[in-house]
Amino acid sequence: MESKRVKDSLTEQVHILTQGNLNGYKRLFGGKLMSWMDVVAAVVARRHSNKNVTTAVVDMLEFKAPAYANDVICIIGKITYVGNTSMEVKVDVYVEELNHERRLINTAYIVMVAIDENEKPTKVPGLILETEEEREEYERAKIRNARRKEYNK
Amino acid sequence: MESKRVKDSLTEQVHILTQGNLNGYKRLFGGKLMSWMDVVAAVVARRHSNKNVTTAVVDMLEFKAPAYANDVICIIGKITYVGNTSMEVKVDVYVEELNHERRLINTAYIVMVAIDENEKPTKVPGLILETEEEREEYERAKIRNARRKEYNK
Amino acid sequence: MESKRVKDSLTEQVHILTQGNLNGYKRLFGGKLMSWMDVVAAVVARRHSNKNVTTAVVDMLEFKAPAYANDVICIIGKITYVGNTSMEVKVDVYVEELNHERRLINTAYIVMVAIDENEKPTKVPGLILETEEEREEYERAKIRNARRKEYNK
Amino acid sequence: MESKRVKDSLTEQVHILTQGNLNGYKRLFGGKLMSWMDVVAAVVARRHSNKNVTTAVVDMLEFKAPAYANDVICIIGKITYVGNTSMEVKVDVYVEELNHERRLINTAYIVMVAIDENEKPTKVPGLILETEEEREEYERAKIRNARRKEYNK
Amino acid sequence: MESKRVKDSLTEQVHILTQGNLNGYKRLFGGKLMSWMDVVAAVVARRHSNKNVTTAVVDMLEFKAPAYANDVICIIGKITYVGNTSMEVKVDVYVEELNHERRLINTAYIVMVAIDENEKPTKVPGLILETEEEREEYERAKIRNARRKEYNK
Amino acid sequence: MESKRVKDSLTEQVHILTQGNLNGYKRLFGGKLMSWMDVVAAVVARRHSNKNVTTAVVDMLEFKAPAYANDVICIIGKITYVGNTSMEVKVDVYVEELNHERRLINTAYIVMVAIDENEKPTKVPGLILETEEEREEYERAKIRNARRKEYNK
Repeated sequence: MESKRVKDSLTEQVHILTQGNLNGYKRLFGGKLMSWMDVVAAVVARRHSNKNVTTAVVDMLEFKAPAYANDVICIIGKITYVGNTSMEVKVDVYVEELNHERRLINTAYIVMVAIDENEKPTKVPGLILETEEEREEYERAKIRNARRKEYNK
Repeated sequence: MESKRVKDSLTEQVHILTQGNLNGYKRLFGGKLMSWMDVVAAVVARRHSNKNVTTAVVDMLEFKAPAYANDVICIIGKITYVGNTSMEVKVDVYVEELNHERRLINTAYIVMVAIDENEKPTKVPGLILETEEEREEYERAKIRNARRKEYNK
Repeated sequence: MESKRVKDSLTEQVHILTQGNLNGYKRLFGGKLMSWMDVVAAVVARRHSNKNVTTAVVDMLEFKAPAYANDVICIIGKITYVGNTSMEVKVDVYVEELNHERRLINTAYIVMVAIDENEKPTKVPGLILETEEEREEYERAKIRNARRKEYNK
Repeated sequence: MESKRVKDSLTEQVHILTQGNLNGYKRLFGGKLMSWMDVVAAVVARRHSNKNVTTAVVDMLEFKAPAYANDVICIIGKITYVGNTSMEVKVDVYVEELNHERRLINTAYIVMVAIDENEKPTKVPGLILETEEEREEYERAKIRNARRKEYNK
Repeated sequence: MESKRVKDSLTEQVHILTQGNLNGYKRLFGGKLMSWMDVVAAVVARRHSNKNVTTAVVDMLEFKAPAYANDVICIIGKITYVGNTSMEVKVDVYVEELNHERRLINTAYIVMVAIDENEKPTKVPGLILETEEEREEYERAKIRNARRKEYNK
Repeated sequence: MESKRVKDSLTEQVHILTQGNLNGYKRLFGGKLMSWMDVVAAVVARRHSNKNVTTAVVDMLEFKAPAYANDVICIIGKITYVGNTSMEVKVDVYVEELNHERRLINTAYIVMVAIDENEKPTKVPGLILETEEEREEYERAKIRNARRKEYNK
């Protein structure tokens, strides 16, 4: 199984906020955003693994700023770490202004697991780290991964 | 501001899974479930604080088992920890069988912040711990809270 | 088949009203509310019968007051009457204020039928009435039941 | 205010059942159907009154038969009775087969109230009865109306 | 296979715009409207062909005017042309005012194909043109049909 | 106002098909797909114009092949032509297989109009054509544009 680069599975999704996407405060409903982020993370993990995948953990999904009606939302997912059968995907969510500036409004680390035809976990390709930023993210991911394992002990 | 007990804000929500709640594998779509959990955590936090609230962090949301069409889903939220303006809510999700047995399929810790009329964070009541289980959960919550603060350092 | 008490199947569901739940007047869309009430009644009937169930009649669903964006909605279902294969469930809908006060906004009596594996009606447990209120509700339910039988004659 | 005939406000709506309209048994989800029926009744009442309207009561909504994926659903609403500010609408729901035959699957009587700019009930036009069927339905509606008034006494 | 008249498959659908139907400008979300129009065209084509159908082309769907919260939307579909296995349906969308006046807000020509049990295209009945308007529309449809065939050459 | 290149507004959106996205045949519901395509075209037009935009025409939206549950759908929008206040966007929809191969399932040309604060059409930047393909698409777009102007004459 050939290792892959981070950019081989980079995934982008855009939305424009309708009224149906808003909560009672007329801000982007967090539950809706989480469902979009889950899909983006799953596509990243499929593209990395060439396998079907299932969500295992949503880790530290942080709401940093609100978004409003008619905002363009860009959701960008990139792989940060791979285990034996699992992959950690960082999902960043931006509001993109008309002048193309992007404000970060939400981030999360989502752990996906590759599954075979019997829905059993299956091995995933290695990850080729090409930039300093990717290597740093990978090191931090190892710490996150260790923390997750001891989380409720 | 009077302190409150855990049971004063305990919140329960039920669903029966329709086809529209299922993903491409005919299992409960994780994004949908997360949006339900977010609402349950918000109601717990409103009931504890008597204030409007906003979601700050979804921490360690773990998918433990799938659910299928026609399953009864019970989502139970209870407060575990309060800070100055924030509250940590544990959300447990069960499939409830026809014989009333419940299988845990998902858990999360969701941090909500109380907000005033200007949407600024505002002080929340203290938490009265009544059982051993509540006290243990509170101690673990302090560790989770500390970890969240240093998360990406 | 062991008879059950009213409280054995008591069911509660909460919502917070998003923009997507509102009609063109910015009030809770009645159609949405009815779909939530149908689910709550079905869970009550499953919990009483330990069987799958199907909705037979929605009887006297009354809209008493509106609800608005960001309101917490509590839907409470309790069993009022059982026939041979059918169960009558009273569903009460409240807006819950930040101070925990509840205003009743909608009520309905929903008749559910228990069904077996072949989707045929199947016998349900008896109902143990424990309080004066439960007994009075049961007497009124007998009258409602008689009326329904002669409804369009 | 000029009286109107039944046919002046007759309203029809069609749907084709997608997976998203189905419950966990792969049958038309009753809650979804009720939300469609509510809209059809509201359009009938608007067309009769030339006013905005609000739903007051859903009376004897009966599920008579299921519907399945890809079925064409026809919902037909017609006015049966008018009071001072209220209107009773009969809503019939059919599955329409490819050969144009229709099977009745659901009926309801829905009471709508006309409202003015201040959302107060406002007078509605009289109803001109033209056929024997309309006159009989009107007589039965008077009985239903009387029953509703004494419903929970 | 007996030919049919235009009026044999005429189809009408009504909606009242909820907040969930609106885009970020509080106007009817075009994507939602398109999904309703697709259903209306499919019902017309089923009623003409007595067959299942699938959408082939949406041709010149034009947004002519906006619609707003609480508007009554009427969608009317009628058949304009039949080929061997395909049918062209004109879909007109109106806002219906409280005084019953209708303003046209959208039109489209949608080409549907009849399919048999194996999901293969299958022959459809001929079209009986009864009015001058129907004959003119049919002539223009022939031109549209020719254009579609050479569209991307 | 500075002219822009095609790649400056290129937009991509991904989805994974849930049950709620499927029609009665368990294939991607065309109405749902159209609503996604409309959003992608709007984001392209915003990115080109740095203005708010509104959909004017959906031209020759062709369904070429079905998609099924759990498929990854990629929607790619790119600008092909600009007028004074309007922009034509080509939207291509693919199913992306696990091995990253893409099958084209739908295409459309969607005309968007830039609008100012008063929702009046407003001038858009010119388009810099960089490749032979872009120039050919632009020439064909001029023909499509001319056809649209004489469409119903």
